[in-house]
Amino acid sequence: MEPLSKAKQKWIRSLHQKKNRDLEALFVAEGEKSVLEGIQAFASHLEFIVALDAFASQIPGQFHTRTFTVSTKELEQISELKTPNKCIAVFRRPEVVADETGLTIALDGIQDPGNMGTILRLADWFGAKQIVCSKDTVDCYNSKVIQSSMGAIYRIPVHYVDLAAYLRQASRQKFGAMLNGKPYKEVAYPKDAILIMGNEGKGVRPEIEALFDVPVTIPRFGEAESLNVATATAILLAEIVS
Amino acid sequence: MEPLSKAKQKWIRSLHQKKNRDLEALFVAEGEKSVLEGIQAFASHLEFIVALDAFASQIPGQFHTRTFTVSTKELEQISELKTPNKCIAVFRRPEVVADETGLTIALDGIQDPGNMGTILRLADWFGAKQIVCSKDTVDCYNSKVIQSSMGAIYRIPVHYVDLAAYLRQASRQKFGAMLNGKPYKEVAYPKDAILIMGNEGKGVRPEIEALFDVPVTIPRFGEAESLNVATATAILLAEIVS
Repeated sequence: MEPLSKAKQKWIRSLHQKKNRDLEALFVAEGEKSVLEGIQAFASHLEFIVALDAFASQIPGQFHTRTFTVSTKELEQISELKTPNKCIAVFRRPEVVADETGLTIALDGIQDPGNMGTILRLADWFGAKQIVCSKDTVDCYNSKVIQSSMGAIYRIPVHYVDLAAYLRQASRQKFGAMLNGKPYKEVAYPKDAILIMGNEGKGVRPEIEALFDVPVTIPRFGEAESLNVATATAILLAEIVS
Repeated sequence: MEPLSKAKQKWIRSLHQKKNRDLEALFVAEGEKSVLEGIQAFASHLEFIVALDAFASQIPGQFHTRTFTVSTKELEQISELKTPNKCIAVFRRPEVVADETGLTIALDGIQDPGNMGTILRLADWFGAKQIVCSKDTVDCYNSKVIQSSMGAIYRIPVHYVDLAAYLRQASRQKFGAMLNGKPYKEVAYPKDAILIMGNEGKGVRPEIEALFDVPVTIPRFGEAESLNVATATAILLAEIVS
């Protein structure tokens, strides 16, 4: 363990920008839970850890040669989060290859990092194989996504693709959430379904909607205008796997 | 419409603290969507509106005598949100009386305002009659709760009570979410069920768990450690109402 140089502090800060972390194919995990889970589940991809002096002893021994220590003030400066944390880790990204089997979630233009993280966590709970996203979907390596995914980012592959082209070539059945579809409980879902969810405000683009095999709807019993996309994904996934 | 005095600006800021808004039985809604929906749905409880000069013309005419105008800088200073907004409205709180009929959601120590807001929005979508909370549950008049509730705060009554005492006297059937309960799909739910959800990290307190008629669980198919409480509420409500 050694102190973190100013130059390296500055370089970590540069990774808060998507274009920089894309260029280097890296991502940054922040906070005790994300870091400790990541270095265990994803050790082969670990570049290095940054930890408060007071927290360094909690980093398992085999990672000490790759741990740098910082003061509270230094950590605040390199962190992207408002509330100061105890540690940060930098990982290389996994190679992801879109798979043609298993339950798949397709996201068309999801913007909110909290929703993306929650959907990752749901995918991880319900055993989805992968998430496939349109290119304008929020970056899954955004620090808020990683935090709200609660470790799912280390287990669920996320692909950014031309979503219309991906869906056009996929032979599996496609179920898409929308307002005027079939009541979701009246539909039979195969285990390798593709579930398509749209943007928070605008829903799914017309060119994606045209590719649905079965449009599905969660019936409303009260007066709310809409459901949050992550809660709608939860309800549909629970039905598909059961 | 007239400018907002410095004294009144300061007083609105004081309402960001729970003890002050409790004392005056008021709450503050921020942002275009929350304010416009609130002044229509909840006009009888409106105290006044604060709007940017540029936005004031979008406030319906009948509310102009109760609208004060501010500069962008003034609005930033009285807003609790980081991103500047166009308007704020102050409302008197509704009188809420706990009802003994209809689908009820009981929350034991939920802490995150985003979760509380999302559960309000779910209650509104699925036609729940009310939300009953333990006294240590996050304040439903917190600005982040109001924002993420998407208008549900104007329609769903929220009660803060001694939750154990409330559940003990309630004669309706109580279903509580926990890790080792009955698979939730194997349970028959009456339309006036009470669904009990616990704290994000700790779950339900033992004294509340002891009052469950049927503990229910959402089976896991993947590797995630847990589900977010709002997504779990979504899945259980969807099943109860269907």
